[in-house]
Amino acid sequence: MKNITVEKWGCLELAFPGRQDGNPFTDHTIRGCFRGEHETVTADGFYDGGGIYRIRFMPGFTGTYRYEIGGTFGAPQSGSFEVTEAKAGNHGPVRVTDNWYFSYADGTPYYPIGTTCYVWELQTDERIRQTLASLEKARFNKIRFCIFPKHYDYNLGEPRSYPFEGTPMDSSVLTRENFSRYTGKTEGNHFDFTRPNPAHFRHIEQCILALQKLGIEADLIMMHPYDRWGFSSMPREADELYWRYAMARFAAFRNVWWAAANEYDLMAAKTEADWEFYGQLMTENDPYGHPRSIHNCFRFYDHTRPWITHCSIQRQDLYRTAEYTDEWRGRFGKPVVLDEIAYEGDIQHGWGNLTGEEMVRRFWEGALRGGYPGHGETFLHPEDILWWSHGGELHGESWKRAGFLLDVLKGVPGNGLRRAEKTDADWDCLHAIPAQAASAAESGYHLYYYSFMRPAFREFDLPENETWRIEILDTWDMTITETKTAGGHIKVNLGGKPYMAVRMTRTG
Amino acid sequence: MKNITVEKWGCLELAFPGRQDGNPFTDHTIRGCFRGEHETVTADGFYDGGGIYRIRFMPGFTGTYRYEIGGTFGAPQSGSFEVTEAKAGNHGPVRVTDNWYFSYADGTPYYPIGTTCYVWELQTDERIRQTLASLEKARFNKIRFCIFPKHYDYNLGEPRSYPFEGTPMDSSVLTRENFSRYTGKTEGNHFDFTRPNPAHFRHIEQCILALQKLGIEADLIMMHPYDRWGFSSMPREADELYWRYAMARFAAFRNVWWAAANEYDLMAAKTEADWEFYGQLMTENDPYGHPRSIHNCFRFYDHTRPWITHCSIQRQDLYRTAEYTDEWRGRFGKPVVLDEIAYEGDIQHGWGNLTGEEMVRRFWEGALRGGYPGHGETFLHPEDILWWSHGGELHGESWKRAGFLLDVLKGVPGNGLRRAEKTDADWDCLHAIPAQAASAAESGYHLYYYSFMRPAFREFDLPENETWRIEILDTWDMTITETKTAGGHIKVNLGGKPYMAVRMTRTG
Repeated sequence: MKNITVEKWGCLELAFPGRQDGNPFTDHTIRGCFRGEHETVTADGFYDGGGIYRIRFMPGFTGTYRYEIGGTFGAPQSGSFEVTEAKAGNHGPVRVTDNWYFSYADGTPYYPIGTTCYVWELQTDERIRQTLASLEKARFNKIRFCIFPKHYDYNLGEPRSYPFEGTPMDSSVLTRENFSRYTGKTEGNHFDFTRPNPAHFRHIEQCILALQKLGIEADLIMMHPYDRWGFSSMPREADELYWRYAMARFAAFRNVWWAAANEYDLMAAKTEADWEFYGQLMTENDPYGHPRSIHNCFRFYDHTRPWITHCSIQRQDLYRTAEYTDEWRGRFGKPVVLDEIAYEGDIQHGWGNLTGEEMVRRFWEGALRGGYPGHGETFLHPEDILWWSHGGELHGESWKRAGFLLDVLKGVPGNGLRRAEKTDADWDCLHAIPAQAASAAESGYHLYYYSFMRPAFREFDLPENETWRIEILDTWDMTITETKTAGGHIKVNLGGKPYMAVRMTRTG
Repeated sequence: MKNITVEKWGCLELAFPGRQDGNPFTDHTIRGCFRGEHETVTADGFYDGGGIYRIRFMPGFTGTYRYEIGGTFGAPQSGSFEVTEAKAGNHGPVRVTDNWYFSYADGTPYYPIGTTCYVWELQTDERIRQTLASLEKARFNKIRFCIFPKHYDYNLGEPRSYPFEGTPMDSSVLTRENFSRYTGKTEGNHFDFTRPNPAHFRHIEQCILALQKLGIEADLIMMHPYDRWGFSSMPREADELYWRYAMARFAAFRNVWWAAANEYDLMAAKTEADWEFYGQLMTENDPYGHPRSIHNCFRFYDHTRPWITHCSIQRQDLYRTAEYTDEWRGRFGKPVVLDEIAYEGDIQHGWGNLTGEEMVRRFWEGALRGGYPGHGETFLHPEDILWWSHGGELHGESWKRAGFLLDVLKGVPGNGLRRAEKTDADWDCLHAIPAQAASAAESGYHLYYYSFMRPAFREFDLPENETWRIEILDTWDMTITETKTAGGHIKVNLGGKPYMAVRMTRTG
């Protein structure tokens, strides 16, 4: 057998032919133990169809590892492999650090600025290529999408494949007017929930890896209510099989995140006990501790539950949205990821017709409060190809500005921002300082944001005996203008435009 | 004596020479009783300087009245006069009706769309003429302003006159940087709080009458904290003299409203007992029951207090502003007048640098929730002439759109709007119906507003067997487009622009 090598935080995959009697998905097991000098990991494998069982492993250290594979699938297997240093651009999986922040396993801070394309990966090859090209152009570093297909307004078509063997209902009866009558129904579908469809998952893996190449985290939405096939109301045993199967396949990819659900509170068939059960599955079956969340429609899940690593938030108020970020940070004590603060677009639904300006304003309101904004786009399209669900091309204005914010965040000393302690002078602006600063006065770095307001100027009092770099950030035009280096009382001209920010850095 | 006539809700003024010994402002009294067939009114008069005492009366009915004047000012006086019908444009004083609404005494609904020019009347004659010309061009029907002069950023100059005899501190020492050190101080001022300055009040009366000619209510701010002369911290006796004097002079003008204070909660020298005392003065000394309010900076006064006729609101949140109007209506059970929801402009202060679009958006958010928005403007000006304080010219965009909203309100059946009972279909829009409608379904009139959202279209289900007029209102461009008359399921194209509204009126 040739020498096996894998890079640190890469994915080792071993494949073995095995038993095909009975139902290999439910009747046989494959489990491996991977031992290196610094870690021992056990992980489940999975049946990939065609008589092949596979098992995957993501090493966290370099050096020689041994593996031992057992289970009922066939004869035990063992061997060794070498883990080499991570290649450039591979920073490892993302972790929560310092309560409210993220970093990659190699310590590099990570600032999620994500987007949402619910079922981009279930579209045609051509559309998927287009989406990946759009993502390469944009600067998003996280994308939320579903494992199950989506049934909703503008989402009446069939997916390229189904997660289980079987046949779907006849969707030719669907119209924009009647589609909601089929939501959550199961009639006409014939899926065998004991037989996952390997081709469906294999394809999703290719998409996860394509994202990995672009440096994008894949925030996998495991369940969601927008369903006409019955996947949202499977019995507990089917759910468990699905979860275990998906985790066995996906967990060893370093850029995977688990989102238990999109809009969990709209899934009438599921109870809190169900969500806690999935939470347990996630913590027990992912040996790598990928980020775990659960996303609301109206009512937040209790984000203090220990299996939840970060808050995946849909804004609860139509008007005051990202502005609650600092309150949520305090309430839940975890990173606040604003996975839906409404989308830029022009469709009829109130969550999908923001201007680009308002979307970018929400980015900044969220980010400067120490949260992480998410993007989405819902423009009417002659063929109903909306980025929010299908990917494709980006048509709006806000996506162009995600990278500017990301660069500002990367320039913050430490690993993120938090809102400064409030002062009388700050009542009408958003004042952020580095997360680790003991206080605003000691921080040596200030970021002020003026949102929809448009002051012609602002005044500041800096210590007299210090020098500071003062930069004016136009968050819409994406320009940075350095104005002066001075302490004492200063007046900064902002031009009476909205969406301006001031960045101040102590230089001496 | 020649026959005296006055129109209904006009102002009868009687003048008598009287005693000048001692201090006529405090040592002598003049009080009148006015008797017609339908009312008997007693009212205080006032000393107007130069040995002249005056007493004013606003009749509420036509016909013959008798007056009897007494007091220590001189010999008793009596006589009669005729009250004629109100002339065109004279609808009488404004009253609260149906809990949350206003109407003039003649029953005409009144929808306050006001503006604020704190001390416009204490500027030069030229500036005052300019302000009145601006008001004539604009469509505001209420203006808030102060009896006392104002000391604040952009307000360092001296007023044209003072409310009391005396001399002010030397204001040449003031700068934008140091002015706040003088706020609330009294040093260097020498005013005799026992001697009101009749010229000051006489001038204000001319301004009130000039507003009356334009159909504008004068919302008189009796007290405020932005003071360097000591008027905000006078002793109780001085306050009482001032209040009684001002009310005796102004109460008989039909377009007067009493605002106990602007930002009462910033007046450190005053306690709740003081405000309740002024409240009592207002109810006891105004025989006509003009509207009475008290305006907050941060904390609302308890607007349920019986002496308060309507809520004069300053928004409490930087982001969610007029959107709270319906909550406040429910909480206080009184009309909600949004006298400060921040101003259009570009000055440095966060309450004074909204875009015109955001200002107009707040107008509509407030009005469709059954409240009444207020305008203000704070643009930097080479001579520090800011509409918000000084009047002068209007420079912004929002003022041009006040009349469009006013016309929409005047077109509502009944006397105002309220928010419709919320339905799932309405979660993402503001749906208003006539105040008196029992329910949305029965109202026959709907006004939908989409605020910052920009739907390309919206869909509605109207009863199949009815006909409706559907109008698209562009609240920014001020256009109304009639689209179709139909019942059943309809789709209304809105062009994907923000600030759009849809008006639907049942026609059969």
